[in-house]
Amino acid sequence: MKAIKVIEPFKVEIVDIPKPEIEKGDDVIVRITSGGICGSDIGIWNGTNSLATYPRIIGHEFGGIVTEVGNDVTKVKVGDKVAVDPVVSCGHCYACSIGRHNVCTTLEVMGVHRDGGFTEYVIADEKNIHKFNVDFEDSLLGLVEPYTIGVEINNRAQIHKGDKVLIMGSGPIGIAAMQVAKRNGAEVMMTDLVKERLEKAKSMGADETVLVSEENLEDRIAAFTDGEGIPVVIDTVCVPASFEQSVQLACPAGRVVVLGLKNQPSGITMADITKKELTIVGSRLSCNAFDEVIAGFEDGSLTPQELMTKAFNYKDVMDALTMIKEHPQDVLKIVLKFED
Amino acid sequence: MKAIKVIEPFKVEIVDIPKPEIEKGDDVIVRITSGGICGSDIGIWNGTNSLATYPRIIGHEFGGIVTEVGNDVTKVKVGDKVAVDPVVSCGHCYACSIGRHNVCTTLEVMGVHRDGGFTEYVIADEKNIHKFNVDFEDSLLGLVEPYTIGVEINNRAQIHKGDKVLIMGSGPIGIAAMQVAKRNGAEVMMTDLVKERLEKAKSMGADETVLVSEENLEDRIAAFTDGEGIPVVIDTVCVPASFEQSVQLACPAGRVVVLGLKNQPSGITMADITKKELTIVGSRLSCNAFDEVIAGFEDGSLTPQELMTKAFNYKDVMDALTMIKEHPQDVLKIVLKFED
Repeated sequence: MKAIKVIEPFKVEIVDIPKPEIEKGDDVIVRITSGGICGSDIGIWNGTNSLATYPRIIGHEFGGIVTEVGNDVTKVKVGDKVAVDPVVSCGHCYACSIGRHNVCTTLEVMGVHRDGGFTEYVIADEKNIHKFNVDFEDSLLGLVEPYTIGVEINNRAQIHKGDKVLIMGSGPIGIAAMQVAKRNGAEVMMTDLVKERLEKAKSMGADETVLVSEENLEDRIAAFTDGEGIPVVIDTVCVPASFEQSVQLACPAGRVVVLGLKNQPSGITMADITKKELTIVGSRLSCNAFDEVIAGFEDGSLTPQELMTKAFNYKDVMDALTMIKEHPQDVLKIVLKFED
Repeated sequence: MKAIKVIEPFKVEIVDIPKPEIEKGDDVIVRITSGGICGSDIGIWNGTNSLATYPRIIGHEFGGIVTEVGNDVTKVKVGDKVAVDPVVSCGHCYACSIGRHNVCTTLEVMGVHRDGGFTEYVIADEKNIHKFNVDFEDSLLGLVEPYTIGVEINNRAQIHKGDKVLIMGSGPIGIAAMQVAKRNGAEVMMTDLVKERLEKAKSMGADETVLVSEENLEDRIAAFTDGEGIPVVIDTVCVPASFEQSVQLACPAGRVVVLGLKNQPSGITMADITKKELTIVGSRLSCNAFDEVIAGFEDGSLTPQELMTKAFNYKDVMDALTMIKEHPQDVLKIVLKFED
């Protein structure tokens, strides 16, 4: 079968690898129909992803149709449409023991630390397989995972009905987090430097958008919150300055969500955190979020068809990568379709 | 009646002021028996507390015996022994609306932003008054408030039975937080640079102590947690280096509590927070914690008599301040007794 392998930075090949076979009772084999390209895939391609090793079959956003199951599998059957959780955890370290397997001490992510889902067939444990309950468009099955990032952000920030939320940045993660927050009953303001991205965010459900190159964000927040300040800030821009700004903008008793993986020191002070008694939380990957996203896809509150900018056949992966590299502002999510 | 007033930095006087009188239905007048001296009182004395204005009757740790109540008061009666919550909040801003009145946008703390409790009689709203259910030593009534700081830390860190907790620094806040954590069923390791403070911490309940000038903290944590790393770190040292170390030491899915009010930038990176999906929380003053502390005083799990280093008559306040200034390492908590 075919797979997309990054041999070394900037060297991508479509390779032939053996099709996986059932080896144990909880194995599930999925014929991949769709994969989403993420910024971290780009990082593996261009050599800036410090977590990845080479050569690597990339792809951690993927889904498809079950073609074979082990003897002990009960949750899914052949023919089911599914999304695959790429997080592989130990089950017994401290994080796993409190249900936070996404930060397992021996965490491996398919497509990053081990081979991933940009291939015709994938084998995974039943616990990583999440079933659609209704028929769903094949090309969108791979977009469950990016929305799970949005669920994790919402869970980490404990976003509930009536919360006012600021999302800095209107890229795919910001928009996924926004749609999940809207599904949770929050009101969401989004920022960006690019007008077209804000228009997209608005059309997908953002209550308010702020073009920060032209508008005063603090004034807009004051109007949005009747002068109270913003209780929840999600920083999807992920540079030290946006982190510092998030901490400054959050109101007393506010929550700030951090997603960045940059190693540059920030200027955050203890006084910033203590005086307002802030809660600053990291959000990484996701934890028990797949079924919630699938429910959102099925009830129409999450709209992956709008997140998808364009679909390419997997054999044209270089065209897809080049489009993202050359026109990053125009792209929300590129999908690879695994079909002949 | 007499009161301790800081006229300006380094100028403390025992002054005569009018005794308060009941003015509204929920007023309560308390004859103060005991007040605890806090680091922030020292800051008002020596001019380093940026929140205080002068002249100021200091004291935010105080308690005593009810001598008079307004017509609408039902919770307490004349003769009751009580502690007084010094936090005055608006009741309707965002923080107040979600029950976090300790970070009210118009927060005032008695003894800091407005006159406090180092005086013979104090007037306060019924909601700020918390009653002892059994007779309790007069000189210790003022030590409820420092223990509420420990409750707030525990609540912010969501410390539960079985949690392993590292408390950096074995001063009064560290020890109060430790005893509350022990009451909550946690196992606690404490650090300090001074051997005698660690001996005190151990005698008051700490499971393990680490003299960080002589022992390797990481090795001790590894032994304490079977190599898992420490899930909860409470930084009562409150300098940028201890904050950074707290973030480094916390294990994946860990919680870090920040208490510092220093404005120096830290070197915390987004990667530190995201990779381990940490939760970093500020903890300031306290929120609905007085009754829990009183219960701990009464059931013997919290031992303010051991926290009290020495008691002075309030007229000898200069001797008390001088002892704290000259021998800070020998002092946990100095109590002022308001009696002739």
